[in-house]
Amino acid sequence: MAGADLGAVSLQSRLVQLNAEYARALDDDRLEAWPEFFSPRCRYAITSVDNHRRGMPAGLMYADSQGMLRDRVSALREANIFERQAYRHIVGLPAIVGEAEGFVRAETPFLVVRIMRDGRMDLFATGRYLDAVIDGDPLRLRERIAVCDSSRIDTLLAIPL
Amino acid sequence: MAGADLGAVSLQSRLVQLNAEYARALDDDRLEAWPEFFSPRCRYAITSVDNHRRGMPAGLMYADSQGMLRDRVSALREANIFERQAYRHIVGLPAIVGEAEGFVRAETPFLVVRIMRDGRMDLFATGRYLDAVIDGDPLRLRERIAVCDSSRIDTLLAIPL
Amino acid sequence: MAGADLGAVSLQSRLVQLNAEYARALDDDRLEAWPEFFSPRCRYAITSVDNHRRGMPAGLMYADSQGMLRDRVSALREANIFERQAYRHIVGLPAIVGEAEGFVRAETPFLVVRIMRDGRMDLFATGRYLDAVIDGDPLRLRERIAVCDSSRIDTLLAIPL
Repeated sequence: MAGADLGAVSLQSRLVQLNAEYARALDDDRLEAWPEFFSPRCRYAITSVDNHRRGMPAGLMYADSQGMLRDRVSALREANIFERQAYRHIVGLPAIVGEAEGFVRAETPFLVVRIMRDGRMDLFATGRYLDAVIDGDPLRLRERIAVCDSSRIDTLLAIPL
Repeated sequence: MAGADLGAVSLQSRLVQLNAEYARALDDDRLEAWPEFFSPRCRYAITSVDNHRRGMPAGLMYADSQGMLRDRVSALREANIFERQAYRHIVGLPAIVGEAEGFVRAETPFLVVRIMRDGRMDLFATGRYLDAVIDGDPLRLRERIAVCDSSRIDTLLAIPL
Repeated sequence: MAGADLGAVSLQSRLVQLNAEYARALDDDRLEAWPEFFSPRCRYAITSVDNHRRGMPAGLMYADSQGMLRDRVSALREANIFERQAYRHIVGLPAIVGEAEGFVRAETPFLVVRIMRDGRMDLFATGRYLDAVIDGDPLRLRERIAVCDSSRIDTLLAIPL
């Protein structure tokens, strides 16, 4: 393999690891680890595909620093929801779509299943992550926009995606 | 790593990228990009596991050249379905199952969620891609047979998988 | 890439291949191939997240050798269920979480869709594999605990996950 090829393989491999660890932190309810996947200056938002297409601001969750992500986690912990449901993220294969402004741009589909306390499961959300990633060791998210396919996502308010 | 090992890693990595880009083109409704994942001479079919097992011809969609794939896309565009539903492909991990007749053979599971305009989501299809891939830069599909697990797939007619 | 980095990329790539082949064997109903993914001395269990958290023994399926896995397959074949349903595993991205006692520890989410003979599909199970993997060529499972998110899994008894 040529050096460029090796680099592409390595980058993809590290994106896979980043996404796997990210999903694992959320599904294990280790929310305090979640802001650590981002750089100190960052942008995180949950939006719907309709809002995203129209260039409308994200309505569901928005943060523009790691500190705001930490505040969000604290707020969730204080809400202290009893017997809450669980979630399972199935993150698809990441596509590296380019480099821009010094960041690696990647798009990765996701599917989230919600598991109720009584054992019922349902499709909770699908969509794609639009990422700007800082290429370091480890990779860090400069930006992650979670664009949900469905606009029926009011109940998403409770958790990061 | 030995050279052979490196080659296997690189091939898997490029299969991941191919599948990620393929799913992304379909889900972004960039159907015109879809034939470009195939070689000029190619075979594409959507079938059910029952038909596939019996060696019956694919009933749902069939094309044996990139030109036919382009025609298919044109026909879909002309049908010009209003307010149509969206789809989300979650493509699983590709298994490299061998080489035959100069092609890499791979099998990759998929799951497709359909998102209605009112926000409802349902499991639309699951199955596996049976691929013959031409090992070049980039990889191109010489053959992709999408074998659906369920035979209830009449409504599939509308979109490539 | 440095040697260590190459090693990590190679390990992840082989974990992807292991998981892809594992899922493929189950979904193709090649159950006889399933014990071959394990080492002769091994541990396999299916449990629920609640039981796992409480340290309770796995109730649904348990084996502590490759021989027991083979017995399990024989029993399933003898039960010889007519017109049985099919399954589709979508295995997520594997996270390498460390090394312990000479094994690679990995965690990998999964989602299983069940396809009835009449074509209906439903979400059958979600969860994660907790693996101890022997780093060889090929990789072999020393331990795989399939922890299901839902405790409603009585019907799981029929098949390995």
